[in-house]
This record gives sequence, C-alpha cells and structure tokens, in this order.
Amino acid sequence: MAKQPPEAWMARALELARRGRYTTHPNPRVGCVLVKHDRVVGEGWHERAGEPHAEVHALRQAAGNARGATAYVTLEPCSHQGRTGPCAVALIEAGVGKVEVAMADPNPAVAGRGIAMLRDAGIEVALGLLEDQARELNPGFIMRMDHGRPYVRLKMAMSLDGRTAMRSGESQWITGPEARREVQRLRARASAVMTGVESVIFDNSRLTVRPDQLALPDAEAIAARQPLRVVVDTRLRLPQAAACLREPGRTLAVAGLGVDEEHRQRLEEAGAEVLEMPIGEQGRVDLHALLTHLADVEQINDVLLETGATLAGAMLDAGLVDEMHFFMAPTLLGGEARPMFELPGLATMDQQRPLDILDIRAVGRDWRIIARPQRSSPPKA
Amino acid sequence: MAKQPPEAWMARALELARRGRYTTHPNPRVGCVLVKHDRVVGEGWHERAGEPHAEVHALRQAAGNARGATAYVTLEPCSHQGRTGPCAVALIEAGVGKVEVAMADPNPAVAGRGIAMLRDAGIEVALGLLEDQARELNPGFIMRMDHGRPYVRLKMAMSLDGRTAMRSGESQWITGPEARREVQRLRARASAVMTGVESVIFDNSRLTVRPDQLALPDAEAIAARQPLRVVVDTRLRLPQAAACLREPGRTLAVAGLGVDEEHRQRLEEAGAEVLEMPIGEQGRVDLHALLTHLADVEQINDVLLETGATLAGAMLDAGLVDEMHFFMAPTLLGGEARPMFELPGLATMDQQRPLDILDIRAVGRDWRIIARPQRSSPPKA
Repeated sequence: MAKQPPEAWMARALELARRGRYTTHPNPRVGCVLVKHDRVVGEGWHERAGEPHAEVHALRQAAGNARGATAYVTLEPCSHQGRTGPCAVALIEAGVGKVEVAMADPNPAVAGRGIAMLRDAGIEVALGLLEDQARELNPGFIMRMDHGRPYVRLKMAMSLDGRTAMRSGESQWITGPEARREVQRLRARASAVMTGVESVIFDNSRLTVRPDQLALPDAEAIAARQPLRVVVDTRLRLPQAAACLREPGRTLAVAGLGVDEEHRQRLEEAGAEVLEMPIGEQGRVDLHALLTHLADVEQINDVLLETGATLAGAMLDAGLVDEMHFFMAPTLLGGEARPMFELPGLATMDQQRPLDILDIRAVGRDWRIIARPQRSSPPKA
Repeated sequence: MAKQPPEAWMARALELARRGRYTTHPNPRVGCVLVKHDRVVGEGWHERAGEPHAEVHALRQAAGNARGATAYVTLEPCSHQGRTGPCAVALIEAGVGKVEVAMADPNPAVAGRGIAMLRDAGIEVALGLLEDQARELNPGFIMRMDHGRPYVRLKMAMSLDGRTAMRSGESQWITGPEARREVQRLRARASAVMTGVESVIFDNSRLTVRPDQLALPDAEAIAARQPLRVVVDTRLRLPQAAACLREPGRTLAVAGLGVDEEHRQRLEEAGAEVLEMPIGEQGRVDLHALLTHLADVEQINDVLLETGATLAGAMLDAGLVDEMHFFMAPTLLGGEARPMFELPGLATMDQQRPLDILDIRAVGRDWRIIARPQRSSPPKA
C-alpha cells in the first residue's frame, strides 16, 4: 500500500466517528485511528455514553503495536477521569509517538488540557487537521459548549408554493415516504424533538423514532434511545390523552410560570413532565431560557424543531434556528393554505430574512433543501 | 473523420435550428444539414419570417454537391409556395438522394404533403429520427397547430417560503441579476408577454426585451422584435400613462365586451390596442377565448405569463399553464407576504395540484425550478 497523507488517516477517523451519529448523546461523536509504518494498527469510535471513548477502543485493538504509532483523533483527547480514565493518559501509557488532533475540546473550561498533558509527556501534538469536517460532526455539542444552548435544526414539509398544511390543518402527507424516512433519521440524530402544543393537539403526533421507518441495519438499537419530546405549551393545554405521552421516552410540557398544581399533577400522572419557564416578550414561554435549560439541565446538543408557522417564526426571529431542512413536494396547495413562517412586523423587502442554501437534492419525488439563516453576528448565547 | 451515425447529423440540424429560438416568430425553428460521403456539404437554419427556410440555406451552401446527398431536416419540408418556393421542390430539384425528417408538420391540414411530394419524386424519406428533441424546439408552434392556442410558460420570482411580493406589493428585487437575465431571455423567446392590469398598475412594468440585459452577442437584433404585450384588463383600467405604452412594440389591453367608446379612443391615442372579449365564469375576460384569439389572429406560438397570484391561479385552473419557471430566491418573506397562486376552492389535500419537476439548477444566488402541471388528460383546445 502506498504511503497515505495524514489527511487520509484523519478522514478515516472522521468516518468512524460518524458511526456514532445516532447514539453518542449527550457525548460528542469521536473517532480514532492508530497508524504505524503506514498501516492501521488500531481504530475505534465512541458509540454510547458510558462506554469507552474512541481512543480506548483503538488502543485495545492495537495492543502492543501502539508504541511509536501516530494517533489521529477527531477531538482533543479528554483529560478528565471518566469511566475508562482520561484518554490522554491512556495514549501516554501506550507510548504513542505523535498525536494529530482535528479540533480542540470546545468546552472552554477544559480546552487544551488533554493536549498539554500529551505535550508534557514529550509527545508531539499537531492541531487542526481537517478541523472543519471535525466541527461538522458535532455542531450541537460545540454550540452547547460555546453558547450554552443546543444547535437547532428546523424540519418542514412544504409544497412548492410554500405551504405546510391546508387551512383546516390537514397535512398528511405532503411529502412522500423517502422524505418521511429522512425526517425519521433527523429525529434519531437529535437529542430532543421540539414542537408547539398546537401541532400535538391537531396532529396528535407521537414525535418518536420508529425503527421500522429508519431503514437502517441497527434501527432497533438506535430507537432504544428516544429523543426528549419538548412541547412548547405556554398555557399548558397538552391533552392527557396525547399519543406522545404513551410512547417510550420522556415528554416535557413547557408552560409559563404559575401552573395550577392539580393540573400539573393530572398531566404528570398521564406521563408528562411539566417544566415552568418565564414568559417572554411575545406572551410565550421565553425561548432563550428554554434552550438554555435544555442545554444545561438536559445536556441536549441537537434539537429538531418540527412545528407550525408561529413557533417556527418565533424561533427564527429569536435567532434560535441554525439549520433548516425543507422537504419540498412537487405540488401546489394555493394561497389559502397554511404558511411556513409567521414573521410579525416583516413588511418591507429590506426586512427580508436572507438564507444561505447549503444543498438541494432529490429525495424520492420530493426535494430536500438545506439552508441556514444568514447572520451578521454570531447567534445570541 | 469516422463515419457518423444518422443521429449525429440530426443532432447538428437541431443545434442549428436552436439558433433561431429568439427570432423565427411566428414560424417554427428549423435546421437542415446536407451530408454526402460522411461529410457536411451544406447546412442552414431558419432565422426570421420572410427570410429563406433552413433547406434553402443548406442547398445554397452545397451548390452542386447536393446531388445524391442525404438531407437531415428537423421538420417536414414545406409543400406550399412561400417567398422562396416549396422546400420539398427545392430538395427534389437539387437531386438529394434521401431525406431524414425528425417530425411531420404539426399542421393537420398540410401534414405529410411535403413528405408525399418527395416520395412521389422517388426520394427515400425516413420519419422520426430524434423526434422528441425536434418537438422540444417548437412547443408553441405545435400547440398552436394541435390545439389552436399558444403554449404558456409561467414565470414567477419567489422567496423560499412561496411569496412573490410584500403585502404592499413591493417586490423589487426578490431575485438577483442572473435570474432577471434569464427572464429577459424567456421574454425574448416568447411571441407575447401576458400579465394582469394590476401588475401594470402597481409595478408600471415595461414588459420589454432589453438588449443590454440579454447578455447575448446578437442582443440588438433579437430585441428588434418586441413580444406582443397582452394585458388582461377586464374593466379597462390600464392607465394612459403606463410605461409599456411608450415602448417599441404593441400593447393589447384585453377588456370585457362593452367598452366605452371614448375611453377606448383615449387609450388608443395613448398607444394601446383595445380588444374586447366575452366575460368568463369568474367575471374575468374568458381566458380560453383570449388564447384562441392570440393563436388565430396574432399567430402567437409562445406566451410568457408574468403576473400575480389571481391571474396565475385562474390560468392554472383553466388548464392553460403548460410550463412553469420559478426563480426561487434564498430568502424568507413571511406569512403576510403575497402568495404565488390563488386557487379558490382548494380546501383539502386531495384537491392539491401536483406538478412534475423537470429541472432544478442554480442561477446566480437563486434557484430555477422548471415544472409543469400533472395532467390526466391533454389540455383543452
């Protein structure tokens, strides 16, 4: 085999890390490759919180061969005592000769410590190889560390004329089965699925990951962790009979402060958890406070927002939508059907909300458009 | 040069025909290649009504070499006495050995006559080589011959959330300069540009082809023919001061029957032509009658429809939209902005208007989506 450039080994580590994309919550996705004499002697990835980190898997596979090897890791090795000890120490003890780190730990409190431990032990450390790709593995984890809130992906099924449902609310199904499968996978990648109570009342959505709809070989294992269901429900109207309350996993009904205690108890008996939040400017639960809570208390990295025009518009206006996945069906629903975003106060062209389109591709008979809001400044923390 | 398959020569003839796409109105686009001993001895295309047909150009170029050659023509040679005589006779007199015809003349009254003349003269004629591509050259001419109405392309600039203007009507500019250049080229290809009087009143659009915006080498020659401007104006509200009335070319104000004679005279003095049409079901000029008039009286092959949600929806509901060019800008305008199609009576999902998407591609920072309505039956004549 010809000599590989360092980028090729790091690309392999990134590929391994991606295998954890449905399962590592709340941890980041990380991959590791150990290379000696232009040959892989060990590799691994982090699969699940509580299980070994990528480096530990790779070192176990390499056994004695790790001595003098170069380790390619997609994230700075940890310096803290986890269940399997700090990875930096494990690399030092195994005698690796060099460590290539794609990106430093985004947690400002610990960033650089793993690298410092390695360097203190006399190991050469290089930082930044394929850093952009490494960052793309963990937008949620990075957002939580950098800004104290989750990364929010909005998902919306739409007609070509920008409608998400008939005026009556009827919307099943605008898009085809391939697009709905993609939505299932977006849910599976998310730590939490967020919606408004209106959507729950109207569609009685379960908001769950269904293994039979993922079309993935390890679907059952993936669906064993259901994303947290977050229902924005300022006046606590969630019905006790809501289907999502009878599904595996947790449902958080987020109400404004001052919930009636009996009402709370009844909902809790029906299977909900009730969270009280301050009311924001629009007479709705303060969305910034809610996202901060989800990051700090629930360790939520990635939120999938699946909701109607009012909450979608409010999240956008609050600067809390990071990425949008539109599934555009080749159909027209007409001017009376429901809009995508209510953006109160948007009245002139210079107030428009420009987007960057990252990708457009066919998904079955529909088209998936990935976009993000153009930002002049970084999102609010 | 290696021996070419017949498809290669016909492809060349199609390419030549396309050179006439901005100029042949009201004639079809036609190309001709004369091939002898695997070598082109003459080629030509129809450029402008009143000028020679494609076959005549090719025969002139071939001079004596046409004898025994094979002629590849994208449309059945004409059998009628035009300014340069019937092309079938010219081919016979030049002594060509064989004629490959991509498609028969769509005019049912003359279809097959040119082919019959050639065969009667002992020339072998084959029909149907690359017929689909040949039909795509002339959708308007074919529609006019087959169904007695023009082919209608709708053009619409839209935001990603399906909005064409702010609530106030403000819309300049949703899309970027590259998309607007494409619209200029769509206008240049059209025999007529059709709009509603509201659009003229609000935007004061000139509805003209502007040579400086075409970005084509022969822009001045193309813009020498301005498409007929057709303003659907049931109650004849076209302002005498409308900018389009002071532009080169004709403006047709299409009003309901019973126009006040003085009002008509004032508008005609301002530069408009006034056409009276029966009123249809929606209290608006009968759109079928109007399109029939445009085909029969004005010899309009291709209409470019550039209008707002009401007329766009009415044309769609009347089965009079054949192709749609959406220019989708990466921006959101919100739920209060203007819709793309008013489709009265569309209230349930099973009444949706499914489309076939033919093409999606980037045009500058915008995306062009070409679609057409799915039809269970052919359009009404």
